[in-house]
Amino acid sequence: MPLIDRVLLGPGPSNPYPEATAALAAPLLGHLDPAFLTLLDETCARLRSVWGTANVRTLPLSGTGSIGMEAAFANTVHPGDTAVIAVNGLFGQRMVDVASRYGATVVPVEHDWGQPIDVDRVLDAHPNPAIVAAVHAETSTGVRSDIAALGAAVHDRDPDAVVIADCVTSLAGIPVEADDWGIDIGYSGTQKCLGVAPGLAPFTVSDRAWHRRVQKPPTWYLDLGLIGDYVSGTATGGRTYHHTAPVAMIASLHAALGRILDESLDTVYERHRVAGEYLQTGLQDLGLELFAAEGHRLPELTTVRVPDGVDGPKVRHRLLTEYNIEIGAGAGRYASTVWRIGLMGHNARLDRAELMLSALAKLL
Amino acid sequence: MPLIDRVLLGPGPSNPYPEATAALAAPLLGHLDPAFLTLLDETCARLRSVWGTANVRTLPLSGTGSIGMEAAFANTVHPGDTAVIAVNGLFGQRMVDVASRYGATVVPVEHDWGQPIDVDRVLDAHPNPAIVAAVHAETSTGVRSDIAALGAAVHDRDPDAVVIADCVTSLAGIPVEADDWGIDIGYSGTQKCLGVAPGLAPFTVSDRAWHRRVQKPPTWYLDLGLIGDYVSGTATGGRTYHHTAPVAMIASLHAALGRILDESLDTVYERHRVAGEYLQTGLQDLGLELFAAEGHRLPELTTVRVPDGVDGPKVRHRLLTEYNIEIGAGAGRYASTVWRIGLMGHNARLDRAELMLSALAKLL
Repeated sequence: MPLIDRVLLGPGPSNPYPEATAALAAPLLGHLDPAFLTLLDETCARLRSVWGTANVRTLPLSGTGSIGMEAAFANTVHPGDTAVIAVNGLFGQRMVDVASRYGATVVPVEHDWGQPIDVDRVLDAHPNPAIVAAVHAETSTGVRSDIAALGAAVHDRDPDAVVIADCVTSLAGIPVEADDWGIDIGYSGTQKCLGVAPGLAPFTVSDRAWHRRVQKPPTWYLDLGLIGDYVSGTATGGRTYHHTAPVAMIASLHAALGRILDESLDTVYERHRVAGEYLQTGLQDLGLELFAAEGHRLPELTTVRVPDGVDGPKVRHRLLTEYNIEIGAGAGRYASTVWRIGLMGHNARLDRAELMLSALAKLL
Repeated sequence: MPLIDRVLLGPGPSNPYPEATAALAAPLLGHLDPAFLTLLDETCARLRSVWGTANVRTLPLSGTGSIGMEAAFANTVHPGDTAVIAVNGLFGQRMVDVASRYGATVVPVEHDWGQPIDVDRVLDAHPNPAIVAAVHAETSTGVRSDIAALGAAVHDRDPDAVVIADCVTSLAGIPVEADDWGIDIGYSGTQKCLGVAPGLAPFTVSDRAWHRRVQKPPTWYLDLGLIGDYVSGTATGGRTYHHTAPVAMIASLHAALGRILDESLDTVYERHRVAGEYLQTGLQDLGLELFAAEGHRLPELTTVRVPDGVDGPKVRHRLLTEYNIEIGAGAGRYASTVWRIGLMGHNARLDRAELMLSALAKLL
């Protein structure tokens, strides 16, 4: 059967960087091979650059992006801890579910979908929560929130509070500065702006979060105390085997990060900004209405309302079957009334934006 | 830098089947693309063949082999449940840790390492445990245990008891018959006899285990109730998005399973048997002593004692640096006194066995 080669313009996965694809198919190394451990160390160092952090414990977790959320709460929630969670989309809602499962007393702060989080409301929701969590780039709505303001406000009030930030759709697409912003635990996924297939969750932990971590969480697989012994050693010593690392995926991430840093982060951000702006202007020129609040739109993920009288799923189906282009449905209650269009990583380019606009124009 | 191309003859990862490597680098599909969902359905069907099961809920979990162990206990252990766990190596020990974390009252049944489990002792350890667990092929010792006898005995006594079997190093290397043997939950890893890079945990759940599952386990990522909704639907309907599936890894598993079933399971088992026997005979001809008890040795993973006066780590280092061959150290207290040599999946061949024997002979 001929291979299908899609243009992946949904909310992720995106088409990987060619360097990432080539590395996936390179000869496999063992997870304890010195050559692999050097590659793992380099991968962690490159992740530190992208996260804007000096955190020793910055690593790719062995699962898809959601496993980062799970690891964040599993290792942070002690019995009786209060977690204030800003909810302005599906992934904020999921945080509430996950934190509750690990025993947190959750104070959700609900926002209208399509709006960024209101830092004052999040701060006023509880006087001294142990954990404050929010989504930087809501994959369900295409909205960017101000994590820098949130981190500063939380730590000004309580230097011991832990700030958790979901950066699944932001990392390597728009600036993330974990240390400057006061992010204690950040997690992401590889299949968005990092331009790698899904399967790893880049993760970073501050010393503050590390020291107050749960000593023996229910999860063995995501126990940071155990994983830390494997990752914070060096290629020549101090490592303890935990689980067999997904070596091919890590080699792929290593290659994509090399590509991104060679291009330079600023250039990559600018490429995302320019492509996203081109698309958003073009969609409005077609008479379409953007969903995310103006001034808070992600360049890498655009949400647009399905025009009245147009069958949203049918247009997506025709894009896929006639033009080989995948875009996303809306999330939650906006499933059939919103489209989500991603220009992420390798796809953050004018040719992708132009193709998207012209194909959509033909179908409307 | 030139790429390093190792001969991976340790306890895993093994060198993948070429079909699996090619599929890793194929154009990426979205996780909700009908073409991908068809491929996922086929992958689950192929896994059923390899597991010897009709279980609807047979799927690749999105993590490395250890996540299968975690999912097994996380979804099975209710408060107060007793779990009898046969321990004859490192992975039995790990089961004890994981089951305890999820609140089981664990009754470990310790065996000498290198010996198979004693079904009578396991049975006598507790009159009515909710869960009985054992490792089919102990990766730490190279020993095969009789899961068929265990499953029959447990279910004869109590039709409601759940039998959990670790098949990480057995699946697709030696016969596994989940339904005939009474395995309620089985898990494996892709990087051993399945001949795929590490990153997925093939998993199967019987109706008995499904009906008594924990309704809301602490883990969201591994909540079978949620994952089941994604996997047990069809390509055209009934699916609910859970997390972004690791599409490239699943495509790779799909290809390796196709290769294995084309070759036929019986031929694949025979290939493992012949290669393992050749290696084990050859090692003994060199004057070396095998570690695993005779009559219970895995063909795909051979454990051999480091001869007196030989520096075990140094020989492994020379194999790696001079011959590009990776073998494994021993596990646990046998780390420096045992070597582990795998002939798994694509490496279950006489040329690999012969290369291993002749290189080792040169170094001894």
